[in-house]
Amino acid sequence: MARVSQEHLDARRRQILDGAARLFARNGFHATSMQDVLKEVDLSAGAVYRYYSGKDELIAAIVNEVLGEIRAAFADVTRQSPPPPPDLLVGLVLGRTLRVWSSLDVEGEPLFPRLMMQVWAETVRNEELALVLRDVFTELRENWVAAVEAYQEAGMMGAEIPAEHVARTMIATVQGFVAQQALFGAAPVEVLQNGLRGLMSMPAPRPES
Amino acid sequence: MARVSQEHLDARRRQILDGAARLFARNGFHATSMQDVLKEVDLSAGAVYRYYSGKDELIAAIVNEVLGEIRAAFADVTRQSPPPPPDLLVGLVLGRTLRVWSSLDVEGEPLFPRLMMQVWAETVRNEELALVLRDVFTELRENWVAAVEAYQEAGMMGAEIPAEHVARTMIATVQGFVAQQALFGAAPVEVLQNGLRGLMSMPAPRPES
Repeated sequence: MARVSQEHLDARRRQILDGAARLFARNGFHATSMQDVLKEVDLSAGAVYRYYSGKDELIAAIVNEVLGEIRAAFADVTRQSPPPPPDLLVGLVLGRTLRVWSSLDVEGEPLFPRLMMQVWAETVRNEELALVLRDVFTELRENWVAAVEAYQEAGMMGAEIPAEHVARTMIATVQGFVAQQALFGAAPVEVLQNGLRGLMSMPAPRPES
Repeated sequence: MARVSQEHLDARRRQILDGAARLFARNGFHATSMQDVLKEVDLSAGAVYRYYSGKDELIAAIVNEVLGEIRAAFADVTRQSPPPPPDLLVGLVLGRTLRVWSSLDVEGEPLFPRLMMQVWAETVRNEELALVLRDVFTELRENWVAAVEAYQEAGMMGAEIPAEHVARTMIATVQGFVAQQALFGAAPVEVLQNGLRGLMSMPAPRPES
């Protein structure tokens, strides 16, 4: 019986989080009220408040879930030795990241990129969220720096280039591509992978003067 | 006299736009009221409403100004023949883009990246803004596709890679780097330039299987 009950609790929690994520992705955090959430998930106030004390707790739960998926995706692929080259690495991470809540959509477009735009906008005005994101970014950067150092040790990349700069640039391609999905509609991961291949096919630039 | 008057009008308009941009970058569009704007710019309602009928008109004016700068920056550098390689191209565009309102800051951080996060978040819930951004993105992509095609014609990049994918990837690096500035603080453009040099220094990847 305890087991059934736990399953029930989890399903309810999932139902509330999915509904809230849909609303947040569509309207932003600020324009979404707890009343909207109750209506969206079709549950009573009592049923919802049993799980989340209010909007801030819902936002925190969703952000933690999203960031957890992103951290796992980044950590998984950079743990391989030697790491796959940037086009494959970015494809693996982005593919997994975009599968987050891939069953949910907003007006026919995947939910995740739109939700990320709201998270970023909220982050610049919410110091608590900013600290959480900064920690995650630091961790991601460390993972990717390790991958870039492995490229350099294997002679696949000029050793004079700061590994952290390459790591940040690779993360930026993922972030920018997610922004493009949110703003201009879904696009296959191959777009970014081909783009990276194009850059990698160029002649090595003269050393920085 | 007409001239003084025009200067006066322009200065007032600038004062209102700068104040509103500061507030929008700090708190987002939704959480900022016209009352907040009046207070921030220290002008009467009559003085402000003479220029802008309300918040929507203010948002539109600021977005148009930002996008105008970005379009000019992108168009300028891709007009050169032959275009500079990606690391220099991106550096020129990003340098100019980050100088937009570089005199204004929010809590010691540059205003522009934070404002862009609010613009992106607003875009996913505002169809009018989405259409404007889509037009600008189409124009930017065309400019950058022309630059990538020039690389390919000059034998600097594999011709089998779709130019549009490389263009989108280069734009993504700029977008992602702007997001990093907003979320994690200012960083010099050289970070992204070095990162691109690192990618360009890698061996050309095997053709797509």
